[in-house]
Amino acid sequence: MNCKDAALQARSISISLSALKREQKDAALETIRKMLWENRASIFEANRKDIERSKQENLPGPLLKRLKFDEEKLREVCSGIESLVRLPDPVGRVLSARELDSGLNLYQITCPIGVIGVIFESRPDALVQISTLCLKSGNSVLLKGGKEALETNRALYSCITDASQKAGIPEGWIHLLETREEVNELLQMDTFVDLIIPRGSNEFVRYIMQHSSIPVLGHADGVCHLYVDEEAEIDKALRLTIDAKTQYPAVCNAIETLLVHRAIAPRFLPQLAKAFSERIPPVELRGCPRTRQMIPCKPATEEDWKAEYLDYILAVKVVDTLEEAVTHINTYGSRHTDGIVTSSRERAEYFMERVDSANVFWNASTRFSDGYRYGLGAEVGISTGKLHARGPVGLEGLTTYKWRLYGNGHIVADYTGSTPKPFTHRPLPNRLPEQTAL
Amino acid sequence: MNCKDAALQARSISISLSALKREQKDAALETIRKMLWENRASIFEANRKDIERSKQENLPGPLLKRLKFDEEKLREVCSGIESLVRLPDPVGRVLSARELDSGLNLYQITCPIGVIGVIFESRPDALVQISTLCLKSGNSVLLKGGKEALETNRALYSCITDASQKAGIPEGWIHLLETREEVNELLQMDTFVDLIIPRGSNEFVRYIMQHSSIPVLGHADGVCHLYVDEEAEIDKALRLTIDAKTQYPAVCNAIETLLVHRAIAPRFLPQLAKAFSERIPPVELRGCPRTRQMIPCKPATEEDWKAEYLDYILAVKVVDTLEEAVTHINTYGSRHTDGIVTSSRERAEYFMERVDSANVFWNASTRFSDGYRYGLGAEVGISTGKLHARGPVGLEGLTTYKWRLYGNGHIVADYTGSTPKPFTHRPLPNRLPEQTAL
Repeated sequence: MNCKDAALQARSISISLSALKREQKDAALETIRKMLWENRASIFEANRKDIERSKQENLPGPLLKRLKFDEEKLREVCSGIESLVRLPDPVGRVLSARELDSGLNLYQITCPIGVIGVIFESRPDALVQISTLCLKSGNSVLLKGGKEALETNRALYSCITDASQKAGIPEGWIHLLETREEVNELLQMDTFVDLIIPRGSNEFVRYIMQHSSIPVLGHADGVCHLYVDEEAEIDKALRLTIDAKTQYPAVCNAIETLLVHRAIAPRFLPQLAKAFSERIPPVELRGCPRTRQMIPCKPATEEDWKAEYLDYILAVKVVDTLEEAVTHINTYGSRHTDGIVTSSRERAEYFMERVDSANVFWNASTRFSDGYRYGLGAEVGISTGKLHARGPVGLEGLTTYKWRLYGNGHIVADYTGSTPKPFTHRPLPNRLPEQTAL
Repeated sequence: MNCKDAALQARSISISLSALKREQKDAALETIRKMLWENRASIFEANRKDIERSKQENLPGPLLKRLKFDEEKLREVCSGIESLVRLPDPVGRVLSARELDSGLNLYQITCPIGVIGVIFESRPDALVQISTLCLKSGNSVLLKGGKEALETNRALYSCITDASQKAGIPEGWIHLLETREEVNELLQMDTFVDLIIPRGSNEFVRYIMQHSSIPVLGHADGVCHLYVDEEAEIDKALRLTIDAKTQYPAVCNAIETLLVHRAIAPRFLPQLAKAFSERIPPVELRGCPRTRQMIPCKPATEEDWKAEYLDYILAVKVVDTLEEAVTHINTYGSRHTDGIVTSSRERAEYFMERVDSANVFWNASTRFSDGYRYGLGAEVGISTGKLHARGPVGLEGLTTYKWRLYGNGHIVADYTGSTPKPFTHRPLPNRLPEQTAL
């Protein structure tokens, strides 16, 4: 099936998908989990082929590691599906309810977005995670994985389609695209596809964002900051800086720039430099002129304030005020995750109110910025855009809402003209009337 | 000030705007209302100049009517500001709150989007409505009105800037753009502007949507439907069809196509045709072949199913089933507002669940689809997109949210590795802890 036909089918199926009840969706998720486990031998075999081929093609080590799909990964994936089953249905929630006039009631009710296109690199577990999130939220999904994971993705996809069909989910809600040409086609299909979610390197995500007429949810950059305020406790600041930089430097929520208030810098920076130089591997510091007066390190240039190193490198800048820290972050940051270390609640609130990022933290490592840690169940990604879902995006971000108006022959003519009927605009409880079929 | 400088200033001011308290914003709104009223003479004088000039330039009658800004319009605008003052602050609402672990609390809190660009035609009252909605929601705003309203817009704008400055709102939160070149610049400024809201004709809105790299909220088309089900009451169906088509045909929420179940069509259509032919002005019907077997009317072509007449014309199609009606709407509709007339709750729920539109109505005229009628206070427009705000967009649609994490030196390293600390993920009440400054 070509990409356009797949999208057309996904669109048409999305309508009945939106009407599925929670029990049907959860039963299908259970079947998927069981069949993935039962078919593990052939999935692992497919993965061995991918790894074999990728080794021959000299895929870099970190990518090879991500490509691996073994029993441990499968167990994680299955336990992820179990948590998804336990989560409430994100569809059919009443967000607001209001009587407009006697017998004329308005409800704002969540519903699926429709058709989601997901483009991801390497990791085959992303295929399972994303498709089960889409199923639970009632969305059709078009998946394009990395070519290095071709065989594994096919095995997982075939398992998911078989299982969901067996569980009575209409065929055609999920499609696997395999070529780069199909991706370019997908990005233009704004009639059929409602949302694109890209997961991969920043160049990859930026390419998608620039080449699609469809709304894109995600983030290209993760230039995260930690600001050590003059009222910070030194030990806490050290602990948080080390965690935020080194616990896993290759990810988007690790910090790239450290801002330090000038009043605390002379005490804090030497201790930090010592801790970082004693680590294995050590962290390279790149400092502003004032930083370099306090500790020996390379100079930071304008480029360093914008850099996402994803490595054991940290840019350091001494600032005069809290305001300067906020302005630096709003100027150079990527609106992802930024934190303040301070003992002052007032200064923390000032920071969190004014830093224009999806996630703003007080006395906590930026590495907590993650759907699983937030308790959202799983995440489809982290959004640095401001519209729709922001920050880690779970099931809720895969839904939108409709306004449903229940009347009894009400016409607008009665509410206009020289003697208009008034509206009551009375709040109703946030649930549908009991006689509803929902 | 050129467009780029205006956008830059709006962006930088937006940070302190986001931290304004409700009292400050409401006091500024009150001052604006007072100063508009006090300066009414010069506003009306400016409007007379615009009307004079536009008459000489042969502006069409309906546009001239929209351009008029007299005491009645000013009273409406002022009473709109009064309702806005009464509405709760959309900023700082806690959407969710969760304990991740002891002393580590996560809050999802609403905040302004940032900088809104609004491009509108003709009606000067839109300038006041939009800028006051932006102020109440803490957003900076770049406004571009129609050139026909140049003098009126300048008078209103000057009143609003003076009043808000007097009330202590930082200068530069609002800018008036006046040239078409500035609009084209605005559409490219995705670094400074977060959202574009266009208000005007469909060609105009479609142009904006196709030429901006910034997210656009709004709608180009309003191809709305009413479906008369086999289980409809004839009288109710007549009443609703007449209201939805004729109460104000030039607006987006008037219906353009009527779908009628074949079982009721032979009784319903002749009565409708009679009612429409007796009206002044009469409504022209364009029917499918089966419609034309029952009533005399012009044939409808494929183009008619896609048409937004905005006039006393209605396309009519007889359908075999409820499913066919839903499919027709999802194929030809514009995802704006669509209604069903039926006595069956089950069939109404089926319709409302499956019609993929922002507003789905049961036994009510599509003309109710409006922010004021919905009780949202005022609206910046109606969105037919599925992401972010959908349907009539009021204050809430001008906000987004941040995730705030409050910790006490919490690091991720403790929650990973061979003996990870578990997360508690315990729900908290939807409010910030009491000691907060908010």
